[in-house]
Order: sequence, then structure tokens, then C-alpha cells
Amino acid sequence: MLELYHAEPAANSMKCLHCLKEKGLDFVSHYVDLLRFEQHSPEFVRINPNGQVPVLIHDGAIITESTVINEYLDEVFPAVSLRPENPVERARMRIFSKFVDEYFCPALSMWGWHILVRRVAERLAGNELEEILGRIPLKEQRDKWATVAGESFTPAQLEDSKRKVSVSIDRLETILEQSPWIAGSVYSLADINAYPMVSGVRRIFPDILSEHLAPRAWTWLTRVEARPATQAALAMPNKVPELLRTFGD
Amino acid sequence: MLELYHAEPAANSMKCLHCLKEKGLDFVSHYVDLLRFEQHSPEFVRINPNGQVPVLIHDGAIITESTVINEYLDEVFPAVSLRPENPVERARMRIFSKFVDEYFCPALSMWGWHILVRRVAERLAGNELEEILGRIPLKEQRDKWATVAGESFTPAQLEDSKRKVSVSIDRLETILEQSPWIAGSVYSLADINAYPMVSGVRRIFPDILSEHLAPRAWTWLTRVEARPATQAALAMPNKVPELLRTFGD
Repeated sequence: MLELYHAEPAANSMKCLHCLKEKGLDFVSHYVDLLRFEQHSPEFVRINPNGQVPVLIHDGAIITESTVINEYLDEVFPAVSLRPENPVERARMRIFSKFVDEYFCPALSMWGWHILVRRVAERLAGNELEEILGRIPLKEQRDKWATVAGESFTPAQLEDSKRKVSVSIDRLETILEQSPWIAGSVYSLADINAYPMVSGVRRIFPDILSEHLAPRAWTWLTRVEARPATQAALAMPNKVPELLRTFGD
Repeated sequence: MLELYHAEPAANSMKCLHCLKEKGLDFVSHYVDLLRFEQHSPEFVRINPNGQVPVLIHDGAIITESTVINEYLDEVFPAVSLRPENPVERARMRIFSKFVDEYFCPALSMWGWHILVRRVAERLAGNELEEILGRIPLKEQRDKWATVAGESFTPAQLEDSKRKVSVSIDRLETILEQSPWIAGSVYSLADINAYPMVSGVRRIFPDILSEHLAPRAWTWLTRVEARPATQAALAMPNKVPELLRTFGD
């Protein structure tokens, strides 16, 4: 049996939802409500001591890290393959997925925290915030919460993250000048792992990603979104739009 | 034909030298002298636009990123396998390798820069330093050089990096309580990818890694070093000890 603990179909949770849908695999979905801090609950921390989603459980074996989960799924269920047969293209798939994890996603994520999580933190009463911070297992996550609940990121930090987002879209655009998909000739985990971040850039930074500014990345998004599996993954539970409405956006 | 562009048998260069030796693969070694900034030379930047070692060239195909290079080598030359057959153990191999790349290595690397690169920078005349900085392709690398050549890292940054190194050794120790090797029952790329960092901790932080403080990590190092391939990789060209002698260490 496959079980996925995940949040909204965005960022790292989307990567695994998307992969499961592309591969046509049945799974039990466990929605973890990040806005209620369920990822730091004792029940969830027993599953992943880092208190982070997504987590895959396959016949009792716990696999963490969205990029690793997706390679695992492709290795164990090879019927629908999402990794290029050609080893050079497979290396390209891994290089871009690594770039997304180490550079692109953290840069974009700072803006996600700045826009959304900061406002969630502002709504919490002092005691409640203390209690939530006290339950976060990773120091890096605790520090990020303390930052957004306090003075927030500095303009210089936000500007540098935006620069990195721009570098990331340039890199994608350059790759797509040479091949239809990120790893080369076939649709792969590299496209699936990049999709939620690129789609986030389109939403947050129209001055970086538009049909005019990055035409190849723009049509790549359209082609990814034309796939039924992408739509099926995007249709999973999502509380964020409702939350943004309560903020008056 | 296999060619590897690499520096000293330490950090990321060691990962690939070690993997090639374990697999018994013949390769042409191209030593890139980091102390002469050959990684930023126009010739090298044509091979890797990021100006970073190691780089593998296999029959003309260029593969970057040490972790990806090692999976590539294991995929293309499967005779001596360095990835567990069991997919759960293979996922564990990837999770720890990712942890090394994203958390352990950057934390330890700050101390490497603090101890060694800072002193190299101090020896450069003003103009020479400007010229070197101007040739570095990645902004993140330029900034690191500017930091070590200027006021260096803050005590708080160094202390936090040391904390992360300590967390990394704790995580290794916990894993080795459950299995003889990092991914589980077999020696794998996870051990190869972690080795140069763990060996660096033994050298720099005897207050974190000693036979007494982390006995399993300590004997794991001994077992890795008893392998002829490890010794063969460590015997590759290394200018760092000579450099440290010139500093009077």
C-alpha cells in the first residue's frame, strides 16, 4: 500500500502528487494542514522527525524528501517511466532537480514565507506563537518562523532571492532552447520537480516570467499543464486560496 | 573515454575519485589547481560555466555535480555496483547524499574557507585579488571570496556552522547504530559521498568526532579507510599539506 502525507498541491508536496498521478498509482492521501501546524504534531513527527511534508509510506517503509520519493516511485513502479533511458539525459534530470532543491526552491520559498506565512504568524497571539515555535523540530525552521513573526526578511535578502529566481528562469529558458523538456527529448521527473516552482514564479513575479520575457518557459508551463495528470494533482485539497481571500487578496 | 577534472582528494573531488577507484575504472586525470584559480580560467569555464570541480567527461558528454557524476558512473558501469539493490536502501543512500550536499558539506566548507582560503586571499596583492574576483562566474562564489578576503565570517556564522557539523555527526552516529553502512547492509555511494566530509571533521573538530564522542562514526571511518580504493584515491595529487606547511602549520 502507498500512502502520501502531503499539504497543498504546491511546492514539494505537488512534486510527489504529480508523480503519483502521472504514473497512475493508487495511494491513500493524508492531508497535513500546515496552517494548523499539523506537521509539528507528535503524531506526524513520529513519522518524519524533521516535521516536513511530503512523506511516502510504502508497505511500512518511510521515505522522505520529495526528489528522492519520486525516484523511488519510478524505480519501484517502472510501468510508466519518468526517467530518461539515456544515462546522460538521466544525469541532466538529476542536475536540474538538484538545482531546484538547492537554489531555485529556497529562493522562491523566501517570498512564499514573506507573502503568506508572515501573515499567518501575525494573526497568532503571543503565547500561541511561542507554543508553536517550541514544537518545531528543525532549528532552521524555527529560525524562519521567528524571522517572519518578528522583523521579517531584510530588503537585501528579499532582493537577492528575487535575483536567484531570475537566474533560475534564465537557466530553464536556456535549456529549453536546446530541447523540448528539461532533461532532453522526454518528459521526466525534472519537469515534474520544476513545475510547482516555475508556476509559482508566474504567479508572484510577472516581471520575471511572462510570455514575452521567457517565451520557452512560458509555453513549457502550458505544455505541462495540458497533461491530465497535472490537472488531477492540482485538483487535490488546497486551503491557500481561501486563506488569501480572508487576507483580502 | 573517461576524463575527470578534479582538485585535491578532498571534499567533492574526492567523492568522484573514490567512486572511480572503487569501480576499478580507468580515467584520464586532469588536476585543476584551485590555488592558482585554474577553475576560473577561460579554458575550464568552457567545460563548466559554473567554474567548479569535479567534472566528468565521458565520450564527449559533460557531467557536473559530484553526486550526480557518481550515480551516472554506477548506472553506466554496473559491473561493480555501488548502489543497493533494495529500493528502500537506495532511497536512504540518496537521502543521506542529499543531506551531505545541502547541510553537512556547506557547514564544514565554511570552516575550510575560514582556515585555508582566507589565508590564500590574504597573500594576494590588491590588484591580483580584484582580477581573480572578476573572473569567478557564480555570484555566490564571488561573495564568499569577498567575505574571506575582507572581514571574514562572523563568530555567530562560524558557531552555527559548527553546530550543523555536530548535528551531521549525530545523524551519522544514529544511522550506524542500526546498520553497518549508511544506506543499510551494503557499502554504497552514501558512504563514498560522506567520507571526505567526515574525515574533515576528524581533522578540524576533535571535540565533535573522536573515538569516545562518536564511536560508530569513528570505526566507520576506519573501515572506509581500510579499503584499497580509498587509499588509491587519497594518493592522488594534493598540494594542501605543502601549503599548510608554508603557513607554518
